[in-house]
Amino acid sequence: MKQFLGNDFLLDSSLAQELYSYARKMPIFDFHCHLVPQEIAEDRKFKTITEVWLGADHYKWRLLREYGVDEEYITGNASDYDKFLAYAKAMPYFIGNPIYEWTHLELRRYFGINDLLNEENARSIYDRCNEKLKDLSARKMMEMMNVSIVFTTDDPVDDLHYHEQIAADTSFKIRVSPCWRPDKLMKIGNVEVFSSYVKTLSTVCKKEINNIEDLFDCISQRIDFFAQHGCVASDHDFNFTEYVPTSIEAANDVFERAMRKETLTFQEEVVYRSCLMLFLGREYSRHNWVQQYHIGAIRNNSTRMFHRLGADAGFDSTNDQCVVTGISKLMNDLDKSEELPKTILYCLNEQDYGALSPLVNSFQDGKTRGKIQLGAAWWFNDNFEGMENQMKRLSSTLLISLFVGMLTDSRSFLSYPRHEYFRREMCNYIAQLVEKGRYPYDVKTLRQIVEDISYNNAIQYFIGK
Amino acid sequence: MKQFLGNDFLLDSSLAQELYSYARKMPIFDFHCHLVPQEIAEDRKFKTITEVWLGADHYKWRLLREYGVDEEYITGNASDYDKFLAYAKAMPYFIGNPIYEWTHLELRRYFGINDLLNEENARSIYDRCNEKLKDLSARKMMEMMNVSIVFTTDDPVDDLHYHEQIAADTSFKIRVSPCWRPDKLMKIGNVEVFSSYVKTLSTVCKKEINNIEDLFDCISQRIDFFAQHGCVASDHDFNFTEYVPTSIEAANDVFERAMRKETLTFQEEVVYRSCLMLFLGREYSRHNWVQQYHIGAIRNNSTRMFHRLGADAGFDSTNDQCVVTGISKLMNDLDKSEELPKTILYCLNEQDYGALSPLVNSFQDGKTRGKIQLGAAWWFNDNFEGMENQMKRLSSTLLISLFVGMLTDSRSFLSYPRHEYFRREMCNYIAQLVEKGRYPYDVKTLRQIVEDISYNNAIQYFIGK
Amino acid sequence: MKQFLGNDFLLDSSLAQELYSYARKMPIFDFHCHLVPQEIAEDRKFKTITEVWLGADHYKWRLLREYGVDEEYITGNASDYDKFLAYAKAMPYFIGNPIYEWTHLELRRYFGINDLLNEENARSIYDRCNEKLKDLSARKMMEMMNVSIVFTTDDPVDDLHYHEQIAADTSFKIRVSPCWRPDKLMKIGNVEVFSSYVKTLSTVCKKEINNIEDLFDCISQRIDFFAQHGCVASDHDFNFTEYVPTSIEAANDVFERAMRKETLTFQEEVVYRSCLMLFLGREYSRHNWVQQYHIGAIRNNSTRMFHRLGADAGFDSTNDQCVVTGISKLMNDLDKSEELPKTILYCLNEQDYGALSPLVNSFQDGKTRGKIQLGAAWWFNDNFEGMENQMKRLSSTLLISLFVGMLTDSRSFLSYPRHEYFRREMCNYIAQLVEKGRYPYDVKTLRQIVEDISYNNAIQYFIGK
Repeated sequence: MKQFLGNDFLLDSSLAQELYSYARKMPIFDFHCHLVPQEIAEDRKFKTITEVWLGADHYKWRLLREYGVDEEYITGNASDYDKFLAYAKAMPYFIGNPIYEWTHLELRRYFGINDLLNEENARSIYDRCNEKLKDLSARKMMEMMNVSIVFTTDDPVDDLHYHEQIAADTSFKIRVSPCWRPDKLMKIGNVEVFSSYVKTLSTVCKKEINNIEDLFDCISQRIDFFAQHGCVASDHDFNFTEYVPTSIEAANDVFERAMRKETLTFQEEVVYRSCLMLFLGREYSRHNWVQQYHIGAIRNNSTRMFHRLGADAGFDSTNDQCVVTGISKLMNDLDKSEELPKTILYCLNEQDYGALSPLVNSFQDGKTRGKIQLGAAWWFNDNFEGMENQMKRLSSTLLISLFVGMLTDSRSFLSYPRHEYFRREMCNYIAQLVEKGRYPYDVKTLRQIVEDISYNNAIQYFIGK
Repeated sequence: MKQFLGNDFLLDSSLAQELYSYARKMPIFDFHCHLVPQEIAEDRKFKTITEVWLGADHYKWRLLREYGVDEEYITGNASDYDKFLAYAKAMPYFIGNPIYEWTHLELRRYFGINDLLNEENARSIYDRCNEKLKDLSARKMMEMMNVSIVFTTDDPVDDLHYHEQIAADTSFKIRVSPCWRPDKLMKIGNVEVFSSYVKTLSTVCKKEINNIEDLFDCISQRIDFFAQHGCVASDHDFNFTEYVPTSIEAANDVFERAMRKETLTFQEEVVYRSCLMLFLGREYSRHNWVQQYHIGAIRNNSTRMFHRLGADAGFDSTNDQCVVTGISKLMNDLDKSEELPKTILYCLNEQDYGALSPLVNSFQDGKTRGKIQLGAAWWFNDNFEGMENQMKRLSSTLLISLFVGMLTDSRSFLSYPRHEYFRREMCNYIAQLVEKGRYPYDVKTLRQIVEDISYNNAIQYFIGK
Repeated sequence: MKQFLGNDFLLDSSLAQELYSYARKMPIFDFHCHLVPQEIAEDRKFKTITEVWLGADHYKWRLLREYGVDEEYITGNASDYDKFLAYAKAMPYFIGNPIYEWTHLELRRYFGINDLLNEENARSIYDRCNEKLKDLSARKMMEMMNVSIVFTTDDPVDDLHYHEQIAADTSFKIRVSPCWRPDKLMKIGNVEVFSSYVKTLSTVCKKEINNIEDLFDCISQRIDFFAQHGCVASDHDFNFTEYVPTSIEAANDVFERAMRKETLTFQEEVVYRSCLMLFLGREYSRHNWVQQYHIGAIRNNSTRMFHRLGADAGFDSTNDQCVVTGISKLMNDLDKSEELPKTILYCLNEQDYGALSPLVNSFQDGKTRGKIQLGAAWWFNDNFEGMENQMKRLSSTLLISLFVGMLTDSRSFLSYPRHEYFRREMCNYIAQLVEKGRYPYDVKTLRQIVEDISYNNAIQYFIGK
């Protein structure tokens, strides 16, 4: 029996432990997260562990609701301590869920607290964490975890001045780059919000937008602006089942109608979005950016709770639609003119690995190593089983040695132990291949492979050096 | 190498064995089965092992057909012994299928026979079982397995007099409650059968049914009647891909046309069923019932065999349609007015766990602990692998500590060892988390968790005490 | 830690090793492959390892492209040695992919080379392989692997003269039979190619084809011709989502329009194909053939690369459509008149096992043992994980003891070690059931079962003796 979160946590052989000893020393490149640039720029400090831990973490909120905790103690007006206490009370019953392991890894790695959180020690742990937080800050938490680069998630009209501020501070060694996430450009169905957003874009770009070509010019301008600020990646939450080949004229017609605030049919929205996705892919290709496709979320299942708490409050889930033909068509349309950029396909539904893995290798170009990637276990798959499934599928169909590895997708500065979790499991997975006689005991190559998956592959892929 | 079905069967560590020593002592609450109330009321005795074992078990029939056994020896006119012999002959070749393990567990637990069933010992085992059956009966089989409560499956027009008879017999300590299963209210497409069924309902309720409001009044009346007889749960085999938001007027129009025996389009059926499901959900909410959604069966694939043997004869299978958006919409429509009852989502297709698990936690209310549940491995998933998959998905996305656990879904009094099978595997799963360093070695909490999953959670969830 | 590809490779217990010692001695019956009959008839020799190993293997091509190897070194004009060198360089990074294991198994089993292929020893291994190839040939490679029967893949208009030539050579003991693959009869959408193909068929059959009945007569004639040449199986890559019940008249109308080279709608194509599939199934039933349904491929994702390299060049992938209702309808339509032939369902998408396994046992006839089969792990599933998933699903729902087992689906004479790989994993799977106490330690029965799955079941199923 292993000790809880002991040195050999998730490492089932001495080879696994040796490989992890190399992997753990690699810096962290967190190429997809939702950290707030302002908090890094201003090096935010946190008054309580509740603030930093429970303030924005809808993974935790979901489990608390399931455990029967009243919303008052989750997103409501209860005191920070009472919220923390509710969390501590529930903790022993989080057995088997990654939140149980993450919670205790975070207590250990950031706060040096090895206790098991529960109702009895809640007060003590709360106080010790808060004491420790006096010495911590956004930047210190990143530095103590050996973070080397992070990509945030940013809107095309963002002026990136927090990114400029961070870059200008030479005392801070961690590279923080924006990542282009054009959600608001996609949501044409809400013509009020959309047309207003386009006007903001027009203002930002100092250019009138009268048709879709103007729109595309402005988008190009912003992509250039993002590129000048170190952006090398985009991120999309697109419903690929929608994709239809279309023409710029048809898309322009929809666009102009939206700008006149006319009601659009769903099929009209699709025409516009399909055209936009194709345009954006070509832009990314021109800039040698990576496009990240996040596939298969359903947002805001509970209308009631959406009205009460808004988006990203823990009421999302996973879709089960047939996605692969839509993705294939879009990638093929980009590929026809050799304008398919580097692309990572992340799926939220595990069942999609079976279709996405072989698709990945239907679009490699024989030039960029691992150009198309099967993304790491995402969101509801970011746990022991999800990572195992992803690695099994990846390695049996593709080359795991080229895998760009893990990211946190997190809103919290306390989430970096998820990289530790991944690296442990990944080293164990690689070691198992050797243990089972499926790969020779060649430590030099194995070390290189686990170091590459931990860090080097992502650097090479996104930054190119 | 473990002994076949030995004490450590499915228990891979001493912790697993210890946990099972607690779990095994818990009574059985079988909250979904197809036992015939009459057989319990009359304490049916069985002349032969064939009668009780092979008489209604389409799981076994399917394997016998696959093994090339003629229908004569399955559902046909062969003698009970010849049927048993055909089963015994095939038995060694059932390796890896749960039927192999269940068969021998049942021989051991009910009949004290440790032999491995085969052609040679078929006669001897047949005779010994039949001898033993002289001392057994429906009730005795339930008592010897430490059953405490069972829910049967009942039609809304059932007069429940067998349930009354069972309840009135104070010498029988096992609670047997009805479960509401309104299949015939759903099947509006066959207007002859449907309109006749509505007339029966009208007679039972002593109320004319002229429109859908009358229908709903009668249904309410029957739900009250069921509730008075201890019913706290319903069960649905509904094709959730069909669900459409609709109005009572539109549904009434379809209903009235069906009562006039006019042919309905499929889309009209859908309108009626969607409206009915919403109405029923609200009724369940009002009564604090649990609704069980069984998702993804295809019935009667072989028309030829359906005409020969009828339904439930082993010709059903698993669907692969995209179900989650339909379920989400129905749950959301109930949730909007805070009328979503406690709900268990069972899927027949393993691929649906990925979409259903996150959906579960999109509708928790922060009041009822584990209000929405991911149901146990069902039917074609009721086996070692299926249970493992369900527990992995459950615990990595939700809280397995709140899981209401196993049920037999069986027509046989000999199926209770399926609870043993589940508890062994569940204890082993929980122990593995500790063995691997993913949860601390805290036997007190672990014991509570396995006892809860075995029994207490279901009691709390359905009965509330 | 096991030695790489050592004697206990994939065999985790002494029982597994014992069982494999029996399984390994069984001959190989490769009932689905893409070997070229001419190469067997003429006993082709190969000048270089590149020719035989990399010449037609799109599994390897895909990985090389992913690794960033230029097409010049894959399908292009680079020298055989330079292509081999590119492959050798990439090899250490194929960790976890079955190609890594296959490559080294093939080097060992055919060439007696135990080295680990890499850049340094590429020259030496290349030379040694080529030297060895002087003594090898198509037939010798089959004989040294203990092949007893193979089925090739053949077009209905093929004159089978290479098959005749092989059969006439009594010095060659391996049975090589054709397998009927009517792809070109299906593709009615391309009316130019289709109508020309029908004319060829007409010429071959010496019969005018003026309507679909004439077509069907010719097909029947060719099926008889194939049967006379030892054919007992067919193979279909059909999109089962399309299947619609139809009439011969409707299908004839589409057929006649195609012959007049009129453009067809997709729905018209579907009508014709559905009718054809039904007709063919009945023909197979009449001849007691096996029909193999290969389910779920997407062909030629990259239009650009299709134009450059044609089909089967490594740009295919896996579909995620809902298939089971279509398959069920077709099987049911054949079953209604008791004309459903022996059928093997292979799925390319692992997610389909959940729906296909229970479907299999909805159409057994209680006469032919294992009449409907869940096919072996195919193509992108032909790897450790894929086989494990298939065996788990098979044995938990069906009878693995009746499984007809593995095939190579390969274009190469070097692929027979895939049978070794499968047999090792299968023996280990069976042994694990015993190790875990789920089946008794009965070596006699276990030996029979692994020998049956390795060889006997397929012989019985296809050949019937």
